[in-house]
Amino acid sequence: MKNKFDLINEMAVDTGSKIILLLLDGLGGVPLAPGGKTELEAAHTPNMDALTSRGSLGLSEVVAPAFSPGSGPGHLALFGYDPLEYEIGRGVLEALGIGFKLQPQDVAIRCNFCTLDAQGNISDRRAGRISTEECIKRVKMLRGIKIPGVEIFVEPVKEYRFAVVLRGEGLSADIPDTDPQLTGVPPLPIVSASPETEKTAEILRQWWFQANQMLADHPPANSCTLRGIAKDPGLPRFPEIYKLRSAAVAVYPMYKGVARLVGMDVIEHDAETPAEEFEVVREHWDEYDFFFVHIKKTDSYGEDGNFDAKVGVIEAVDQALPMLLNLNPDVLIITGDHSTPSLLKRHSWHRVPILIAAEWARYGPATKFGETSCAAGTLGLIHHVDIMPLALAHAKRLGKYGA
Amino acid sequence: MKNKFDLINEMAVDTGSKIILLLLDGLGGVPLAPGGKTELEAAHTPNMDALTSRGSLGLSEVVAPAFSPGSGPGHLALFGYDPLEYEIGRGVLEALGIGFKLQPQDVAIRCNFCTLDAQGNISDRRAGRISTEECIKRVKMLRGIKIPGVEIFVEPVKEYRFAVVLRGEGLSADIPDTDPQLTGVPPLPIVSASPETEKTAEILRQWWFQANQMLADHPPANSCTLRGIAKDPGLPRFPEIYKLRSAAVAVYPMYKGVARLVGMDVIEHDAETPAEEFEVVREHWDEYDFFFVHIKKTDSYGEDGNFDAKVGVIEAVDQALPMLLNLNPDVLIITGDHSTPSLLKRHSWHRVPILIAAEWARYGPATKFGETSCAAGTLGLIHHVDIMPLALAHAKRLGKYGA
Repeated sequence: MKNKFDLINEMAVDTGSKIILLLLDGLGGVPLAPGGKTELEAAHTPNMDALTSRGSLGLSEVVAPAFSPGSGPGHLALFGYDPLEYEIGRGVLEALGIGFKLQPQDVAIRCNFCTLDAQGNISDRRAGRISTEECIKRVKMLRGIKIPGVEIFVEPVKEYRFAVVLRGEGLSADIPDTDPQLTGVPPLPIVSASPETEKTAEILRQWWFQANQMLADHPPANSCTLRGIAKDPGLPRFPEIYKLRSAAVAVYPMYKGVARLVGMDVIEHDAETPAEEFEVVREHWDEYDFFFVHIKKTDSYGEDGNFDAKVGVIEAVDQALPMLLNLNPDVLIITGDHSTPSLLKRHSWHRVPILIAAEWARYGPATKFGETSCAAGTLGLIHHVDIMPLALAHAKRLGKYGA
Repeated sequence: MKNKFDLINEMAVDTGSKIILLLLDGLGGVPLAPGGKTELEAAHTPNMDALTSRGSLGLSEVVAPAFSPGSGPGHLALFGYDPLEYEIGRGVLEALGIGFKLQPQDVAIRCNFCTLDAQGNISDRRAGRISTEECIKRVKMLRGIKIPGVEIFVEPVKEYRFAVVLRGEGLSADIPDTDPQLTGVPPLPIVSASPETEKTAEILRQWWFQANQMLADHPPANSCTLRGIAKDPGLPRFPEIYKLRSAAVAVYPMYKGVARLVGMDVIEHDAETPAEEFEVVREHWDEYDFFFVHIKKTDSYGEDGNFDAKVGVIEAVDQALPMLLNLNPDVLIITGDHSTPSLLKRHSWHRVPILIAAEWARYGPATKFGETSCAAGTLGLIHHVDIMPLALAHAKRLGKYGA
C-alpha cells in the first residue's frame, strides 16, 4: 500500500487556484449550561453564516476520539501529518515556542532550573518557581559557557523554564531526560542511548558541570535538569506534497515555527489583529497559492475561561472576513486545531467545527456556522489529516484516483 | 507508533471522578414498518430524554460496518478492546456463558454430542438435538472419567451442547476442532498443532476414547465432537489501562465472565430487575470509580421478536434511572453492545444509539433519546472502542496529547 502523501502527491495538479486555511485556535466549544450555545454559536457572525450557503459544514476529529491535542499535534494534523505517526520532540516545540529559528541539525532541549540540597539531591524540581526575571538573569550567566566544536544558545522561556540549543557537526538527540520526576534523588546522569550519541552526551556533561558551578551560589535555582532532547524531525515537505506555494501568517512564534518545520514560507509582519493579519495576506496574495492564517486569541480566552472574550475574537474575525473574501480565494476553510471550551479552560477532545467554502462544495441547508449545524452538515465527520486533501479537491487541484 | 492502550494509559489521571456505563444489551432497533419508531423511540423515557439536554448523542459502530457482533466481540469493543485484534476463544465464551470460573491456565472446550453410525461415521452432528435433560444425564456419566495429572470439569450447556474444562500444569489449547462440519465421515482426529501441545492432545484422546465407550450404549448421543479449544486470552487489564477501580453488576453469567476476563471485580448479588441492579451499584458506590451495569432483557425480547416487551424493559430502566442519577456520577453513559431489532429477531449490524451525560459534554438540541436524534447528535459517529476513552475524557480523567 502506498503511503498517503505519495498518493496525494501523485493526484495533485497545480491548477493555479488559491486556498486560504483560516485557523481559529481552539475554535470549538461547549455551551456553559444545558440549552445554551457554544462560543461560535453565540457569536454574531453574519459573514461566516452567509458562507454556509456557499460551502459545506462538518465536524473534524483532530487526533482520535477523546484525545485533547496539544498545539504541536493539532497543527501537524491540520497540515495532514498524522500526529500518532509524526512527532515533534518537546525540546523542538519549546524552541519554536520562543521563536528560535532551529536549523535541521540543531539539538534543542527544554531545561528546568531546580534546587539541589547539600547532598546533591533535588529538593525542588522547579526551583521555587523563580520569576522570569530571575530566569533571565541566570540564562545570561549560562551564556558564558563555551565548549569547543559546538555553538550553544541559551534562551529564557518563562519562570523556571529555559531552552538550550546545540549547533554543530555530528550532534544527536538520542539522550534521555535527566529529570527524575522525583525529589530527594539527584538528577539522572547524562547518558547516550547509542554510540553515535556519545559526543553530544559528553558536550552536555561538560555544559551541565560548568552550569552547576556557575549556579552554585544562586539558590534556589542552583542547578537544572535537561528534558525533551530533540531535533527537527525532518518532516515531509508541505509545499512539495501538495504542490502549493505555501505561506504562513501568524502572530505567535509557535505557529510560525511549526509552519517552518513543514517547509512553508513564514511571512514576517507586525500585524496583531485579525484585520491586520488579513491585510498581510492581501499584500502577498500574488506570491502564493496557499495561505495558512493563524488566529491565536480564541484559544487564549478559552483557556482563561472567558466565554465573552472568545466570542469577541470570533466576531472580530467575522467582521474582517470580507477582506479575505474580496481576494476571491477558490477555497476558504475556517476551522480550529482543537476545541478550547471556556467552560473547561483547557484544550479538549470535542470535535472541531469546519466550514469549506468553494464553488464545488456540496452546499447544505445550514444558515449558521456552529457546532450543532456542523454535526448535521453535508461534509459530515472528517479527520484533520484530511483537511488539506479536501482543500486541494475543492480547489480542483486533485485528479482522479485510478482509471 | 505506540499502541492505543499505552497512549490512553499515559494520558490517564486518577482524579477520583466516577463513571457509570449502563449497557442495555441489544438496545438498538429498527421500526416495524416505514414511518414507525424503533423500540427506544417508542418507549416512554422521560428520564433519559431529560438527560439529552445534559449530554450529547451519537451513533456507535460496534465492530465494523455491516458486522453483527456476538456478545463476546460486542463487550470487548465496549471495554475498548478491538474485537478484530483481540479474540476470546469459543470454548472460553461457552465456559463464561454457563458461569464457570475459568482460571488463567485452564483449557476450555465447546462440545457437541453427536451420533456415530456402525462404521464410526457421523450421521447427526447434533445427536438429534437431544433435550437438555438428556444432555445432563450424559454429562454426569462423563464426569466419571479420570485422567492422571489433570482435573477435568464437564458441564451441560443446552440440548446437545456441553463444555469441558481441563485444569493442570503445562496445558495448551493449540488443537483444531474435531467436528468435520459434515456427516458421513468420522470425527477428525485430535492432533497437536505444535510439540508443546502434545500432552494436552494425548489427554483429550484418552478422554474422548473413554467418553465413546461410556456413550456407546446411549444413542442418539453416542459420541461427541470437540470445538473452539481455547484458553483465557490474557487480555490487558481494564482497571490498570484506565486507572479505574472497576466493578461489574450483571445478572447473566456471560457478562460477568467477560468483565472478569478483562480484570474487573464482579459484584455478586441476587438482583434481577434493573432497579435491583441499580441498588447494588448504590450499595457499592464508594468502593469503585467505574461501574459496568448490564441489562440483559432488551436483547432477549429483541431475539424473541417481542417489540412491546423490549419497549417495556427500556421503560423499566428509565423508571429506575433516578436511582443512578441520585448518586451524582460525573459521567453516565447509556448504550448497547449491538442492536437486536425485534423485527429481525437477532443481533444486527445497525449502529447503536449512545448518550454521554456529563458536565463537560457538548449539549445538543435533541429532546428525545432515540436512533434518529442520535444520528444528528453532537457526539456524531463514534466507535465502541472509543467509548471508554470518551468516558475518561468526559470525567476529566484524560490529560493532553502532546505539548
